[in-house]
Amino acid sequence: MTKTERTYLDWNATAPLLPAARQAVLAALDMTGNPSSVHGEGRALRMLVEAARRDVAALVGAAPAHVIFTSGATEAANLVLTPDYRMGRTPLAVGHLYVSEIEHPALREGGRFAREDVTTVPVTRAGIVDLDALETLLQGHDKAKGLPMVAVMLANNETGILQPVKATAEIAHRHGGLLVVDAVQAAGRVPVDIEVLEADFLILSSHKLGGPKGAGALVSRGEVLMPAPLIRGGGQEKGHRSGTENPAALAGFAAAARFAAADLAARNARIAALRDGLEAGMRIATNDVIVHGVDAERVPNTSFFSLPGLKSETGQIAFDLEGIAISAGSACSSGKVGQSHVLTAMGFDAALGGLRVSLGPGSTEADVDRFLAAFSRIVSRRRAA
Amino acid sequence: MTKTERTYLDWNATAPLLPAARQAVLAALDMTGNPSSVHGEGRALRMLVEAARRDVAALVGAAPAHVIFTSGATEAANLVLTPDYRMGRTPLAVGHLYVSEIEHPALREGGRFAREDVTTVPVTRAGIVDLDALETLLQGHDKAKGLPMVAVMLANNETGILQPVKATAEIAHRHGGLLVVDAVQAAGRVPVDIEVLEADFLILSSHKLGGPKGAGALVSRGEVLMPAPLIRGGGQEKGHRSGTENPAALAGFAAAARFAAADLAARNARIAALRDGLEAGMRIATNDVIVHGVDAERVPNTSFFSLPGLKSETGQIAFDLEGIAISAGSACSSGKVGQSHVLTAMGFDAALGGLRVSLGPGSTEADVDRFLAAFSRIVSRRRAA
Repeated sequence: MTKTERTYLDWNATAPLLPAARQAVLAALDMTGNPSSVHGEGRALRMLVEAARRDVAALVGAAPAHVIFTSGATEAANLVLTPDYRMGRTPLAVGHLYVSEIEHPALREGGRFAREDVTTVPVTRAGIVDLDALETLLQGHDKAKGLPMVAVMLANNETGILQPVKATAEIAHRHGGLLVVDAVQAAGRVPVDIEVLEADFLILSSHKLGGPKGAGALVSRGEVLMPAPLIRGGGQEKGHRSGTENPAALAGFAAAARFAAADLAARNARIAALRDGLEAGMRIATNDVIVHGVDAERVPNTSFFSLPGLKSETGQIAFDLEGIAISAGSACSSGKVGQSHVLTAMGFDAALGGLRVSLGPGSTEADVDRFLAAFSRIVSRRRAA
Repeated sequence: MTKTERTYLDWNATAPLLPAARQAVLAALDMTGNPSSVHGEGRALRMLVEAARRDVAALVGAAPAHVIFTSGATEAANLVLTPDYRMGRTPLAVGHLYVSEIEHPALREGGRFAREDVTTVPVTRAGIVDLDALETLLQGHDKAKGLPMVAVMLANNETGILQPVKATAEIAHRHGGLLVVDAVQAAGRVPVDIEVLEADFLILSSHKLGGPKGAGALVSRGEVLMPAPLIRGGGQEKGHRSGTENPAALAGFAAAARFAAADLAARNARIAALRDGLEAGMRIATNDVIVHGVDAERVPNTSFFSLPGLKSETGQIAFDLEGIAISAGSACSSGKVGQSHVLTAMGFDAALGGLRVSLGPGSTEADVDRFLAAFSRIVSRRRAA
């Protein structure tokens, strides 16, 4: 296999740009102007941005007015995770952040909260947020310091395991708190509706949906209780996020959101079949492969596995040399291949580490076949070693 | 003139995308992957990002390691304008921000400083930062609270007037302070060298240079004294700015930076001749046009004028109806046409307001002719009214 024949199975790191998103980006790139300008060029771009807002809102059942566009999900997380809120024009303090142990670092770092104001919520061995532990933590919350805020993801980026968001919302709200849901890996893979989830805020990323990089959103259920701006300046996004809007990225994000919202069930059935075939194939090749979260509810595109005797770094490089792009956990920091904090949180031997295969709408049976052929060769070499 | 025949003379709001930048964006959009992934796809994008860093560094005479990429200049301003610095790993407080009265709102809002820790530095009637006033302010700075920080722009976005950055640096440094220079409107229009300017930090924007929107940079002279991150998470940009990098936007930014660095003198001579012709033509059409900053050193592409009897809002709309995109001041907030804070700062009757014509490498004599024809018609209507 030559170097150019590649099989991309790392859709959770970045989904390849969808043709419709590519086209939307190009069309917007060729429009000159600044969406804040009042002349014709500016107004045309303003319309594009507002159309994008409607499409992104529709993906998650929100009002367009409740979508704040950002440069990505990490910025959205840093915007929403702050002790400094406003109820209308009145300051309102959020006293403490309770963030699940398996959140993406964009949330686990705690945004604008001081480190001592962030507590980690454990997960069960099944990889699911421990709701009893959350309940206990919130019972001990010091209301004098401000509201509690709880942050959980809808689908874990490494295992794909779905989290009990609605039950988390019930607990957070019963304690007078706010719920932030990282829907980055869930949107486009399972239905996401901010009202159904009873989330106060949702975080979305364009490039995980097949849109371009450089766009994300913080979606709110209302607009009365809002975080202090993270980026101040010209007052764009109703003052919630200043800086010239990026119409090309937002138009691409919108195209990806429209794609994600359409034919979800049919697309999921096809992707789940590929994923299940891939996992069955691995088990045929070797009986000691451990697929994490196989008994849990998962998004249909993700398979996270460990292979005793194969470290995740070594495994990832071996697959890369076979022409297959997969990931050792999440791709969150420059070239860093660390232990999986998710496996550690699940009580698994994290020194071994895991390998993540993630599929998408463009994935094919041929991709799975090439992966399994490489998997067999890598397993054989492991045995021979 | 049909609606589609437009003349774009608002390059200071956004420069049209350069063909080389467009090509670089498209090439990067077609590369799949996440620059933080260690597989082949990720490494190829990582190389693209690092090449972009070298090109942007070269534009301002900086070390590539001293370029932090952001989503734009506003984010870069909010990153650098903070009381929370680190000298290596030791916290170091910046006690007060002194920001010129004519800064862009991205800086005037003061970033992460509390409002009471920001003082405005006046400008002279000539539109230039009042260095005597700055000296007096810094003499009164309370060192017990931390270092002073001074923020000035190299070229004003409305008038194009160049600011005495080197003299400002001398004053700031003599008082043990830091100098932040907003070079957004200067880069690509005048030589910008961080060492020559003696700036501690420089702010750059891609889309003002003919690159795509969605990219900017904070450039530092060293890397020992750095601001606390604004956006935390996966640890990209050496931890200074988390979030998946946007290789397409950065590749386009780099292409624009290469273009900006090449043939500056020849390009400037051509643009200055167009601008001077435009100003001469306005004076021929009416003897009461006031061109602001005509006696000051200006970037060659900008003309900011007032026409007694023509409010800037009305004027901008009149030009727009004539098919000409110009600006009433800066395009910083959604469709807001406010009074020019720059004219107010210069002691001019801001109720009248100003109109900004800004040219670029793609501007032609035909653009100027169309502008002047429209100008004459608008001036005649004003007389008739």
